[in-house]
Amino acid sequence: MLLEHPVDVSFGDCDPAGIVFYPNYFRWMDATFHRLLQETAGGHARLCRELGAVGIGLMEVGLSFRSPVTEGQRIHIRITRIDWETRSLKLRYEASLGDRTVLEGHERRGLFVMRDGKMAAADVAALKDRIARG
Amino acid sequence: MLLEHPVDVSFGDCDPAGIVFYPNYFRWMDATFHRLLQETAGGHARLCRELGAVGIGLMEVGLSFRSPVTEGQRIHIRITRIDWETRSLKLRYEASLGDRTVLEGHERRGLFVMRDGKMAAADVAALKDRIARG
Amino acid sequence: MLLEHPVDVSFGDCDPAGIVFYPNYFRWMDATFHRLLQETAGGHARLCRELGAVGIGLMEVGLSFRSPVTEGQRIHIRITRIDWETRSLKLRYEASLGDRTVLEGHERRGLFVMRDGKMAAADVAALKDRIARG
Amino acid sequence: MLLEHPVDVSFGDCDPAGIVFYPNYFRWMDATFHRLLQETAGGHARLCRELGAVGIGLMEVGLSFRSPVTEGQRIHIRITRIDWETRSLKLRYEASLGDRTVLEGHERRGLFVMRDGKMAAADVAALKDRIARG
Repeated sequence: MLLEHPVDVSFGDCDPAGIVFYPNYFRWMDATFHRLLQETAGGHARLCRELGAVGIGLMEVGLSFRSPVTEGQRIHIRITRIDWETRSLKLRYEASLGDRTVLEGHERRGLFVMRDGKMAAADVAALKDRIARG
Repeated sequence: MLLEHPVDVSFGDCDPAGIVFYPNYFRWMDATFHRLLQETAGGHARLCRELGAVGIGLMEVGLSFRSPVTEGQRIHIRITRIDWETRSLKLRYEASLGDRTVLEGHERRGLFVMRDGKMAAADVAALKDRIARG
Repeated sequence: MLLEHPVDVSFGDCDPAGIVFYPNYFRWMDATFHRLLQETAGGHARLCRELGAVGIGLMEVGLSFRSPVTEGQRIHIRITRIDWETRSLKLRYEASLGDRTVLEGHERRGLFVMRDGKMAAADVAALKDRIARG
Repeated sequence: MLLEHPVDVSFGDCDPAGIVFYPNYFRWMDATFHRLLQETAGGHARLCRELGAVGIGLMEVGLSFRSPVTEGQRIHIRITRIDWETRSLKLRYEASLGDRTVLEGHERRGLFVMRDGKMAAADVAALKDRIARG
C-alpha cells in the first residue's frame, strides 16, 4: 500500500436512496491521488511547474461497487499499486469500511504538456522518479 | 441512440487546470440515466415504488477521456445502447463537442431490493419492459 | 430581469431527505452568473484577460429558502437586479418552480486583481460597462 | 466553540482561478453541522426518527469571504455559537487557515415535520435538549 486516505461520509454525500452518490467516490479517489503528490513531491502545482506540464490528468477510469456506504460511516481509500508505462501510469484503488472492501477501482493518468497548441501525453519517467523518491 | 442530454459546462465545473473536473462527467451521466427513466417510465421514485425496489444503482462504471472540455462549451451526452442481462443492465454513453467525441463510458446497474435486511440485485425483466414501452 | 437560467433537478442533486442538497443552489447561481458574463461579454476568461483580473469572485453571499425542490422538477433561476458600487457589484437572484418562488438570494462580487503579490478588489466601472453593453 | 472540523482542500475543490469554488464551503459547513449531530445525538437519521421529523433543514444561510484558500491548504471550520428560537436555530461558523480567519457564516435551520401533507417548522425545544445533553 502506498497511501491511505480516510473519508467521513456525510449526509450531503448521499442521495435520496440514502447511500453515497457515486460520483463522490471519484472526488475522493482524485483527492487521494493529489495527497500522494503532496506527500511525495510537493503537490500537483509544483510538479507541473518543475516538469513543464499542464496537469497530471485522466485518460481512463473505472470503479466496481461491492457494498453500499451510508452517512456517518468512515471509509479508508488506499492506493494499492502503481503500474508505470511510457506515457501513462495506472493507479489501483481500494476502499474499505472496517474489514469489508466496499469498492475497487483504477485511474490511468498521463502527464499532459502543450505541444504546438495541443495537449499531448509526455514521458512519465521524471514523474515516476519524483514519486518514488518522495 | 436512446436519449441525448445537453450539458453547458460552467466555470465551477472546471478545475485549476481549466478543464472539467472529471467526477462531474459521472454526475452528468447519472443525470442522463435519470432523465431516461423520467421520459420512459415516470422517474426513478415511481419505478422503485412500482417494482418494490430501493434503487436502480451502480455495480460498475468506466470512462475513457478522449479530449478535454472547458468552460463555456456545450457537450451532448448520449445513451447509445443498453444491454440487458438477467440481474443487470449495461448502458453505453458517448459525449460529443460539436462533431468530436470527447468521452466514451458505461454504467452497469442493478435493480436493488431489500431481502432479509440486505440489498440484493433483482431480475431486471420488469424494468426492461417499462423502459422499452416508454 | 436580466437573465433566466433553467435547471432540471436530478436525483443526484438531492439528499437523503429527498430534497435538493442546498450547496447545489450556489453552483446553479454561480452558473447563472457565468452565463450572464458569456452572453454579455464573451465569458469570464476573456473578461479577466481584458481587464487584467484574476477573477470576478465572491465577497459575500446569502440565500433564503422558501420551499423545497425535489428530483424531476425544473426550476428557473433569474438575476433580477445588479447594484453597482465602486469596488463591488451585488446581484439579486430568485428561483421559481412554476409560479411559486422557491428561493431568493444575492451575491456580492469583486473584480480581483493582483497588487504587490496580494489579491485586491479593483474598481468595477469597466466591468459594468462591458455587462451593460452586452 | 462547540465543534472544530478540519478540511483538507484538494485540487478538485478549486476552480480555474485556483481557489476554492465557493459552493464547497457550504458542503463543508453542512458536514460540520452533521458531525455535531452525530457527536451529540447519534446523527441526523436517528434524531429525525426520535423527533418524528423529515429533516433538520435550511431556512436561510449566509457567508462572508475574507481571504481565498487554495489546494493543499488545511482549514478548520468551527461552530462558534448556536442561538435558539422557538421554531429555528441559528448556527454561527468561522473557518481559519492557521491564525487567519478566512470566512464567517451562519445557517438558520428548522426541524421540519409533515403536517397535512406539507412541510412545517416544528418547535425546536426537543432538538435543543438533545444537542445540549450530547
